[in-house]
Amino acid sequence: MHKGLQTHPNFYFLLLSILQVGLNTVEAVWPLPQTFISSSEQYRLNPQTFYFGYGMQSAAQPGCTVLDSAFKRYFSLIFLDLTSGYGALRFSVDKPFSVEISVDRDDCDGYPSEDSSEKYNLTVSAGRASLNAQTVWGALRGLESFSQLVYQDDFGSYFVNKTEIEDFPRFQFRAILLDTSRHYLPVQTILKTLDAMAYSKFNVFHWHIVDDPSFPYQSRTFPDLSAKGAFHPMTHIYTQSDVRRVISHGRLRGIRILPEFDSPGHTKSWGKGQSDLLTPCYNGGIPSGTFGPINPALPSTYTFMATLFKEVSSVFPDSYIHLGGDEVDFTCWRSNPDVRAFMQAMGFGGDFTKLEAFYMENIMNITSALNKTSIVWQDVFDYHERRSSLSVVEVWKEGCYLCEVRRVAKAGLKVILASPWYLDQPGPSHNWARYYTVWPLAFKGTEEQKKLVIGGEVCMWGEYVDATNLMPRLWPRASAAAERLWSDEQQTSNVDKAFPRLQEFRCKLLRRGIQAEPLYVGHCKHEYQGI
Amino acid sequence: MHKGLQTHPNFYFLLLSILQVGLNTVEAVWPLPQTFISSSEQYRLNPQTFYFGYGMQSAAQPGCTVLDSAFKRYFSLIFLDLTSGYGALRFSVDKPFSVEISVDRDDCDGYPSEDSSEKYNLTVSAGRASLNAQTVWGALRGLESFSQLVYQDDFGSYFVNKTEIEDFPRFQFRAILLDTSRHYLPVQTILKTLDAMAYSKFNVFHWHIVDDPSFPYQSRTFPDLSAKGAFHPMTHIYTQSDVRRVISHGRLRGIRILPEFDSPGHTKSWGKGQSDLLTPCYNGGIPSGTFGPINPALPSTYTFMATLFKEVSSVFPDSYIHLGGDEVDFTCWRSNPDVRAFMQAMGFGGDFTKLEAFYMENIMNITSALNKTSIVWQDVFDYHERRSSLSVVEVWKEGCYLCEVRRVAKAGLKVILASPWYLDQPGPSHNWARYYTVWPLAFKGTEEQKKLVIGGEVCMWGEYVDATNLMPRLWPRASAAAERLWSDEQQTSNVDKAFPRLQEFRCKLLRRGIQAEPLYVGHCKHEYQGI
Repeated sequence: MHKGLQTHPNFYFLLLSILQVGLNTVEAVWPLPQTFISSSEQYRLNPQTFYFGYGMQSAAQPGCTVLDSAFKRYFSLIFLDLTSGYGALRFSVDKPFSVEISVDRDDCDGYPSEDSSEKYNLTVSAGRASLNAQTVWGALRGLESFSQLVYQDDFGSYFVNKTEIEDFPRFQFRAILLDTSRHYLPVQTILKTLDAMAYSKFNVFHWHIVDDPSFPYQSRTFPDLSAKGAFHPMTHIYTQSDVRRVISHGRLRGIRILPEFDSPGHTKSWGKGQSDLLTPCYNGGIPSGTFGPINPALPSTYTFMATLFKEVSSVFPDSYIHLGGDEVDFTCWRSNPDVRAFMQAMGFGGDFTKLEAFYMENIMNITSALNKTSIVWQDVFDYHERRSSLSVVEVWKEGCYLCEVRRVAKAGLKVILASPWYLDQPGPSHNWARYYTVWPLAFKGTEEQKKLVIGGEVCMWGEYVDATNLMPRLWPRASAAAERLWSDEQQTSNVDKAFPRLQEFRCKLLRRGIQAEPLYVGHCKHEYQGI
Repeated sequence: MHKGLQTHPNFYFLLLSILQVGLNTVEAVWPLPQTFISSSEQYRLNPQTFYFGYGMQSAAQPGCTVLDSAFKRYFSLIFLDLTSGYGALRFSVDKPFSVEISVDRDDCDGYPSEDSSEKYNLTVSAGRASLNAQTVWGALRGLESFSQLVYQDDFGSYFVNKTEIEDFPRFQFRAILLDTSRHYLPVQTILKTLDAMAYSKFNVFHWHIVDDPSFPYQSRTFPDLSAKGAFHPMTHIYTQSDVRRVISHGRLRGIRILPEFDSPGHTKSWGKGQSDLLTPCYNGGIPSGTFGPINPALPSTYTFMATLFKEVSSVFPDSYIHLGGDEVDFTCWRSNPDVRAFMQAMGFGGDFTKLEAFYMENIMNITSALNKTSIVWQDVFDYHERRSSLSVVEVWKEGCYLCEVRRVAKAGLKVILASPWYLDQPGPSHNWARYYTVWPLAFKGTEEQKKLVIGGEVCMWGEYVDATNLMPRLWPRASAAAERLWSDEQQTSNVDKAFPRLQEFRCKLLRRGIQAEPLYVGHCKHEYQGI
């Protein structure tokens, strides 16, 4: 009674390999570290005699918020049986095992940024592990790797093998986008996503916070925007304290929170709480009662945007801000006589891309005056004549996306690649390999141009996604993208080699309470018990 | 930054209709009742003065297990705010409201069967509702409808409108299949699925309990089958008490539990715990060490199957049993000299379909001797010469499935249609309309032949599905199929009319804790808070 199901050709072979390698595979860390040497020499860990501590030479010492809370978190993640009540503490003669963390810089109270080093070295030997990093953010990545090295035997004992890891990310910008406008996502769902992101070493949460359908961001300066533009003014909003919670949760996991306030299109919900912001559309010479994109012809527009972005810039500490700029429909602008008159006065003639560029230029000036680096969707690059005013361009369209990446890099601008990682798209949901076999630098270009590709982004748009289906739709497929963005391409180009590793990693996600869907027939020792 | 997303053409129109109709739409019940008359006259319900009771003339009275527990369940579902701690009891001068249930037959301790009437009448008027049904199973359907009629205003008060419903199912057999072999599903997940099934008036749980990858059913007679054939002999099995729990949970919701023990193919896992059952495959004249389908040439096979089915027949009270019979690969049989010798002796020549038919005939004789009606997948019908020995045929293949339905009905056999409802299949997950616009009787045939189509089945195979993603993949898409199987086709053929109703029903599912995924952009008053 089956049909149309593609059986994985190497499935039985792969099953075999899993059985042979056993639980403690030699490459137990996902995404794969740059250098990974391990041996079969194993050390037993006893929760009673295990501890994390700071190295003597470490710039960070007890009291370091980021690492103190990471120690607590990872202790629980490593000894899950203990904390979930499955196992029992037992007296033991096991020797102590200490993980000693040393960082070069005390950035414990700062935020991760585009320049933060995430490099770390980890050495696991008898009785101790030592983890060295330049920054606390690098130390977080090392703790994640260490936690993945620990495994349990059939009797519940914990072990870790002798291991040597030198590691750093291939790309600096490894993002996941969530869309909280098309469906509202409860704060808990966002926090849980940040947890899961850290397990796959993602480091940027791109918060597409507002759009046409709803405006859930509760602005201090313009409270009407959410009061009138959210799905519900009390239950479907993000208060300032919600936002702070997300930023703080991200910070403790080395994740930057990048807000997007997309304009001039995708702003229908803005108009509900802010009059005279959107362009009135005309029909047969009279206003039709409907509204189009933000009105670029009114000076008040820029005053409003400057005030809004001033608030946003102070609320979100990251130095990047996403300005959107995609998919602007000119129909309404064209219908409006005031907009047309403005076009004439400005000498734009009938070319609406010039008007659009003028608008975006103004917005970019506003945000750069606030010391923010702006990201825009590729549309802005495509129609913009003065490309030198752009900073970072995000490539999202289908087709030859590497052609676009190349064009942007040739123009000397930084690039983020999103096109191949639209995980919300309908399609074979198990087809993780499609997100794995992406080669972001496979375009003709100089070394310098390739360096301009700062990373990639998994996009989870909200048309068909909310808290009911977000987690299984995102995980573990986003983890496939995560390895592409973190690991060495040469070592991770083989799908068949990745498959059993990703299966194992997916079981780890389940164990940590992440609703990651299965890749194929099989089982995990601990199944998801959420329902 | 969007691509390839199909905007629903009538989306804004539909949104408008929802707003106009408000919460208490005139057709607030899903699936749509056969006759539904309601007015805008509304009655306030106060949880303190609301009660369910038995009619004077009712054959069932207090102590009726099915209805007593349904009263408790539906009270909680109707006054969710109360039981979830949201609302507060308040003193009130509201008049009492009683729902009086009367049934013609006291079948409180029985099981729903293929002959059970599910017909009910429901009248809601000032101060009281009366619900009449022939059986307790019909009363359950009526209680579900009543619970869906109740709504809350913005202040949290509960209301129900004056309503008159006469209702019965279009098809007697409305099933959901879960596959617990390709992935193990925790018992809790199965029970939750039964809950959700009752909300959409499904009445058969087709439990595809074993298959190639694992044998989780713990047999009393052959404990080695799960001890050796399950993914894990302790954690990934269904004990006898688990099975009883599923059967009892189903019974209380009027849901039949239909077990499938698929053979002779799809039985790899059986071979681990039962030697000499599967056919040894040969390669170059010697046994290759691999095994094929069940060995039809050995008398011991039939002794084993008779013993197993004797147990299964006593464990599962339903009079139907699913024997599978699909996708038998002849390669291994053909390679085996003993099987070939048996073929010669039986006069089958080289025709392996004859061997297959011989095997199935024996199995059907075994189960009919146990007083069970057997269902088989269409493959068995296709190759069987003595079709008169078959009872119920399930059509699952793609292509012109109605052609097959017609062939089976013409042969005078009962038909279950599954082909258009393979919900596990990859594809646009939001495409619920595809499962709604199915016309099971749109084939040339006599009235009598059409009556042989006893119903349909939603299949959720387990290759890519486990407890992490089952619920959002199943709901609310399965509800689309549910309306097709319950309601009048004439009244429910319009997708645009169904859309806002299904959106509203999906919000009700969320409210009841069912992780039903969104159909499109929008929100529910109470979003899913599970994560």
